[in-house]
Amino acid sequence: MSMDLLIEKIVEMKNPTVAGLDPKLDYVPEYILKEAFAASDDPLEAAANALLQFNKGLIDELCDIVPAVKPQAAYYEMYGWQGVRALARTIAYAHEKGMYVITDGKRNDIGTTMEAYAAAHIGKTAVGDQMIAAFGGDCLTVNGYLGSDGIKPLLKMCKEYDKGIYVLVKTSNPSSGELQDQKIGDRSVYEVMGEMCEKWGEEVPGKYGYSAVGAVVGATYPSQLEELRAKMPHTFFLVPGYGAQGGGAKDVSYAFDKRGLGAVINSSRGIMCAYKKAGVDEHDYAKAARAEAIRMREDILGAIGDISL
Amino acid sequence: MSMDLLIEKIVEMKNPTVAGLDPKLDYVPEYILKEAFAASDDPLEAAANALLQFNKGLIDELCDIVPAVKPQAAYYEMYGWQGVRALARTIAYAHEKGMYVITDGKRNDIGTTMEAYAAAHIGKTAVGDQMIAAFGGDCLTVNGYLGSDGIKPLLKMCKEYDKGIYVLVKTSNPSSGELQDQKIGDRSVYEVMGEMCEKWGEEVPGKYGYSAVGAVVGATYPSQLEELRAKMPHTFFLVPGYGAQGGGAKDVSYAFDKRGLGAVINSSRGIMCAYKKAGVDEHDYAKAARAEAIRMREDILGAIGDISL
Repeated sequence: MSMDLLIEKIVEMKNPTVAGLDPKLDYVPEYILKEAFAASDDPLEAAANALLQFNKGLIDELCDIVPAVKPQAAYYEMYGWQGVRALARTIAYAHEKGMYVITDGKRNDIGTTMEAYAAAHIGKTAVGDQMIAAFGGDCLTVNGYLGSDGIKPLLKMCKEYDKGIYVLVKTSNPSSGELQDQKIGDRSVYEVMGEMCEKWGEEVPGKYGYSAVGAVVGATYPSQLEELRAKMPHTFFLVPGYGAQGGGAKDVSYAFDKRGLGAVINSSRGIMCAYKKAGVDEHDYAKAARAEAIRMREDILGAIGDISL
Repeated sequence: MSMDLLIEKIVEMKNPTVAGLDPKLDYVPEYILKEAFAASDDPLEAAANALLQFNKGLIDELCDIVPAVKPQAAYYEMYGWQGVRALARTIAYAHEKGMYVITDGKRNDIGTTMEAYAAAHIGKTAVGDQMIAAFGGDCLTVNGYLGSDGIKPLLKMCKEYDKGIYVLVKTSNPSSGELQDQKIGDRSVYEVMGEMCEKWGEEVPGKYGYSAVGAVVGATYPSQLEELRAKMPHTFFLVPGYGAQGGGAKDVSYAFDKRGLGAVINSSRGIMCAYKKAGVDEHDYAKAARAEAIRMREDILGAIGDISL
């Protein structure tokens, strides 16, 4: 089961973090841009190739110390189908290097349309007599506003191909409370969503206590993180908001159980742009990313203690 | 303003409908499949080319009678980046033929990530000193679960490029009520979302009374459609659920105001697969789609009366 696989990688590397690959052209070193734009006359293709090269360099330096990467679909789509091709190739390269891939797409729809998204990102598409993994991620982030009709097609794919999902429960942004904190009786909207995750997860249990249905819970609301950890004992958390968005190691520590399991903490800009912050030569961007990934791991391990199955 | 443009096209054609382009390979006539698979060894490329050919035929027959098309991103993503290229080319072709394009992606995220989605689908991406429309739709469907942080980047793009959005309010699926019908005080979750749409819309008003912030409201819940039409006087509705999902002309009529404006009704399978239902030669699939589009227009006009500005 896919969440089991992530847990095993986390324990093996003693590192409950994921590197977000949300590459804007601004983040990419000049030397990579120059090479990519010299090689293609199509600006979107050149941009997309630059992102892919940038990602490959990061993956090479991170793959032995960070269990997972999380490419954010938006940053690829903005460079058109050429960018989306770079997303597919990034996922394939991360897999070649043994990394676990969470495709951050926050997809949502119903019925056959949701089946299409599920096939695209964590399943396979039937073409003639072949079954083809179009993007081939291990996990997909999704939005549960449409209810069970939007989630069940994913559960089917999770079972068939050993994959997982993360449902948005409580997001890290300032306005997340406009809807998510509203009260339905004595529960907030995000609690209702959390309960649905626990229920959906019953269909796809995992061997370490966490189902294939995870939840996105932001680091910027630590008290809610603590509350949800207690109320959602079978739901693994994907936690954005560490670093650039303001969450610290102590804040994210509430997402973990007593074994040091239960969550994976994301850092995107912190890792991708470490070389800018450190002021090192741009050719060393990936080494700077590695140093930041190690610092982040130690920071979080310091707050949660050991990790064991 | 983009919603004004759609309204003008609807009035000009006396047709408040949109043709959903959600092409599965199963829907595509054999002769198109044969040609596409003979021309390429890459199964995803062949599949994507078949979808594009299928769409072009539909667009050719619909462009003088139907104001808009709505390609659903999921059905393209399932064929990988090759499918996403077919999406981009479908949008470009629909524009060549003068059609309005609603990209159905139900995208959602926050901050710079939402800016990236907005740039990708309704805005432009900066590459060097060029600004490039990566997909170039006129409107994008979005999910508002994350609150204003997820919508504001879109409003900026709506203003800058005369574009629009449709926010999921009340969806057409059986389980939509699991969250959307829950009560927050004396209002349901979908009413709260509807009120947010009205508020977001204030920033981007239109000259016919409807803002650039539309809402997705399903045809399968007519009483809620009527209720929301009254409560959201400045919000244009995109209404799925007609035909295949069970909604009839009377059901969708509640989405309209006294001028016969206020909504655009979607039909996907009904139009795309009309040739199968009619039992005509597959070479006439586009003509059958045209006949069904005319039948649908007359059906809906019969229920709402005339359309005028």
